[in-house]
Order: sequence, then C-alpha cells, then structure tokens
Amino acid sequence: MGFQQDGIGIVARKDQVKKPDSDAAVKRSLGKIKNTFMVMSGKGGVGKTSVSVNLSIALANKGFKVGLMDVDIHGPDIPRMLGLSSMLDLDKDQKLVPASYSENLKAVSIESLSINKDDAIIWRGPMKYSAIRQFITDVAWGELDFLIIDSPPGTGDEPLTVAQIVTGAKAIIVTTPQEISLADVRKSISFCRTVKMEIYGMIENMSGFVCPHCHKELDLFGMGGGEKTAREAGIEFLGRIPFDREMVSCGDAGISFQEKHADSVATKVFGKIADRMSSLISG
Amino acid sequence: MGFQQDGIGIVARKDQVKKPDSDAAVKRSLGKIKNTFMVMSGKGGVGKTSVSVNLSIALANKGFKVGLMDVDIHGPDIPRMLGLSSMLDLDKDQKLVPASYSENLKAVSIESLSINKDDAIIWRGPMKYSAIRQFITDVAWGELDFLIIDSPPGTGDEPLTVAQIVTGAKAIIVTTPQEISLADVRKSISFCRTVKMEIYGMIENMSGFVCPHCHKELDLFGMGGGEKTAREAGIEFLGRIPFDREMVSCGDAGISFQEKHADSVATKVFGKIADRMSSLISG
Repeated sequence: MGFQQDGIGIVARKDQVKKPDSDAAVKRSLGKIKNTFMVMSGKGGVGKTSVSVNLSIALANKGFKVGLMDVDIHGPDIPRMLGLSSMLDLDKDQKLVPASYSENLKAVSIESLSINKDDAIIWRGPMKYSAIRQFITDVAWGELDFLIIDSPPGTGDEPLTVAQIVTGAKAIIVTTPQEISLADVRKSISFCRTVKMEIYGMIENMSGFVCPHCHKELDLFGMGGGEKTAREAGIEFLGRIPFDREMVSCGDAGISFQEKHADSVATKVFGKIADRMSSLISG
Repeated sequence: MGFQQDGIGIVARKDQVKKPDSDAAVKRSLGKIKNTFMVMSGKGGVGKTSVSVNLSIALANKGFKVGLMDVDIHGPDIPRMLGLSSMLDLDKDQKLVPASYSENLKAVSIESLSINKDDAIIWRGPMKYSAIRQFITDVAWGELDFLIIDSPPGTGDEPLTVAQIVTGAKAIIVTTPQEISLADVRKSISFCRTVKMEIYGMIENMSGFVCPHCHKELDLFGMGGGEKTAREAGIEFLGRIPFDREMVSCGDAGISFQEKHADSVATKVFGKIADRMSSLISG
C-alpha cells in the first residue's frame, strides 16, 4: 500500500506512477468493472456529490454492485453524506477495503484515510494524480456493475486524471439552472470533447423549489436552463431534480434521502436515471 | 507578456517561474498594494465569487482603489458577474491592462483572455502556478488600496500559490450554514494555519431566506452554523448574508446588486464589512 500518513493528512507515494506494473494493475482493476461514470460540474455547489450519492444508492437498490469513488481530494464529502465515519482496513493482499454502505454499495474517499477530518489536504496536482491512480489500483473493488466517480468542480487535475486513467468512463454533467453555472458547464462539455470522454447526459439540479409554508413554486436559481443547454450542445438531458431542503439535511446527517423520502419527486427522478443506466448492463 | 493563445484557451509561459528577476518583479508589484485579501471556501457554490465581487464594489464605492483578481482558472466567473466582456489590452510596457468596472475597480481573470468563453482551460497545477504569478507580475495593477483575490474552493494549487507568492495576504473564509459546508470550511482554517496565512474573518452566506410570496422565513441551508464554527475556531465572524434570489439574477446578468438593491440586508452587510476593512487603511 502506498498511502502513508503525515501531519497534514495522507500522502500518496510519489513513485507509485513509475511502478513498472502500474498500467497493468490499472487494467486489471478496471477489467472487473462493467461501467464507469464520472459525475462532474463546471461550478461547485450544484449538488454534484448529492447526485453521485443518490444515483449510487438508486443503482444499488436495483440490485447492482456499485462502487463510489470520491476523487474530490480537497472537499471529500462522500463519507459524511453516506454516514460512513470509520477508517478503511487493508485486506490480505494489502489492498484497501472500501467502506460498506450496504451489501451492494461501497465507497472510497481520502476522507476515510484522514485521522483528523478537519485537517486540510494541501496537495499540488502530481500528488492528486498519484492518489487517484491508487484509488483504482490499490483498492479491492472486486467485480462491479457500476463505478461512480465523484469529481471536484472544474476541469483541472482530478477530472483530467480520471479521463487519462479510466478508459471508457462516461461523463454525467450536473448543473443548476442559473446562467453562471451554465456558462461553466459549457466548459465541462468542451473538456469532455477535448479529452474524448463520452458525455452520457446532463442533470439539472436545484431546479425550482416549493415553499413549505404557502406551497407556491419559487424560482431559486431559475428553471429549464440545463435542458436548453443540453439540447443546444446535442447532449442527452437526463432529468430535473427540484431543490429539496430535506436533501440538505439528509446529506448533513448522513441519512439516505431516498429511503426517508421514497415518494419525493427527487427519488423518482434518481430512480428513472438509474433505470436508464441499468439498460447498459442488460443491453 | 507571457500569455499565448492556443486551441484550448490561454497558455501561460512555462519558463516564467524561472525568470531571474521574477521574485523582484513580484515584490515590485506587491509593493504598490496596501492590503490583499484572499476570499476562499472549503466547498464550492457557497457564493464566494458573489462575496468577492460585492466586497470589491463596496470598497470601491467608499473611494478606495480596488483590484479584483480571479484565480479560479477552471470556473472564472468574475467578468460575467461584473458585466465585463471585452478582452484585455497591453500597455506600452507590454503589461496587461485590467478591465475597468468603474474608476475605482478593475479586474483580471483568465476569462478575459479566452477567445471562446465556452472552451475549457484544461491545466494541471504547474501551469496554474505560472498563470497566477503572471497575474501579479505582468498586470499593470498600479497603486491599490485593496487587492481582492477570488480563489476556487478547496485547498489545492490555486490558494497554495497565492499563499506562497502574496506575502501578507489575509484570508476571508465564506461558508453556508449547512454542516457539509462547515466540515469543509474547517479544512480551509487548517489550510491557513498550516501555510501561516492570517484569517481576517468568516462570512456566512445564503443564511436564511424569506419566501417572496408568503414572507415567511425559510430555512434553506440552516442558519448560524458559520458563526458557531468561527467562534469555536477563534476566528472573527464578519457577518451573515441572507439568500437573495436577486443576487443570483444580478450575478447572471452582470448587474451590480448593491446599486439595484441599495436598501437590501445584503447590501448593508457588505457595507459594514467594507467599513471594517477600511479601518486597515486609516488605522
């Protein structure tokens, strides 16, 4: 195992990239994974991690084996959202054992390797490249139907590393309907086309909001801009998820929103997108 | 000037860092700037750029000379929020002339150097280091009372580069009240303490919301968590800015929120924080 701990957090072994069997190890790990999706966004705070977590749960609920990989090194929120607080163990082959959320869903995040969760991981790009590569090669993912990769916003080292290492990964782009977010999402589209990553589709999150007091529709960040942008770019539009205060508090508390609010609009949209993704397995 | 254009966007000259007079050039540029603040956040989408823009406008309105530097390379939203769409010119010394928002406020962003705004800037860390350094040395900032630096979320290459280059910069940390955001903000605090950057204070953004239909208070992302976190960490709490739908639409349209909504709570809070920052000049 190449992870070592220092005062700041976890340091990935710098020589990892140069290991002679490294490319073969990547291939071996990826060979057991049927489908990989990278959830990305142009702007932060559009609910990318919420979408990654909820899509993973929806797929796992349908009986698929799902892995959730958090490549957001500086803001790793997956463990908190899934309510997973324990450290990761090593198996007999010295591989990291992902944290289990349920029988079908397991997750890996740099957060689960940090002793003090409040410590910052202050890394430049090459360290992140190395850590993400280890998340593929040095984790005992086993056989997976789906690997969902939650990327930080933007088009920097983390998504670029995924694009270079995980051949065949498809992008799911998340946006809110506001113009500032759409402007940045067009950069995500440009990124995928430049690195030749297939775009599976776009999701519009925080799309409209109903006041819990008067039940009138509120236009928090606008509505429909994501669908329009997807259409203009010739990208599949996967669905619109309304802003739900409950999704914020479930995420904060590490509780499954879909279990607690099985009849909500958001739960149904996640189920529908998961159905669509499932067809990649049966088809 | 070291900026060159290619198919993707703007490429910073790689050898810039090694220029023999480079450290002297940084020192010369910074010598004309009285106070520098880096606005940062743990999580994206907490309104960091809105805060940077509005604080800069509030300071400029008080008569100070203000520069706004956008070091968010992958999601540069400053020009759009300020309604600045033109490309930047070079002066007779071959330095970049910042875009003028008003007599007192000028801004530089990678966005103002890109020909096609929808193209992604796909850069690894060392390129970003070089570009940020050029934002200091190769821009004709002139004499400034305040330089406000808008950083992307997290604790990666961009804030680290600022911390290393801009000696004496103070951090303003922005958060929303939700726990996921607060968890990441504690990493920002840890970052500042590790790199020995003084924390000027914390701002709680998107703190409560009033329904425009029934005028009841709504708890979008919770409330008060930022103040509590600041107190626990022994950091100055600078103020609480409510979620305002108008701030989203003004930002999207590139219109000054403070001008259009001079009597809003948010405008008053920004004015108060700017007053506090002003005391650094007179004091």
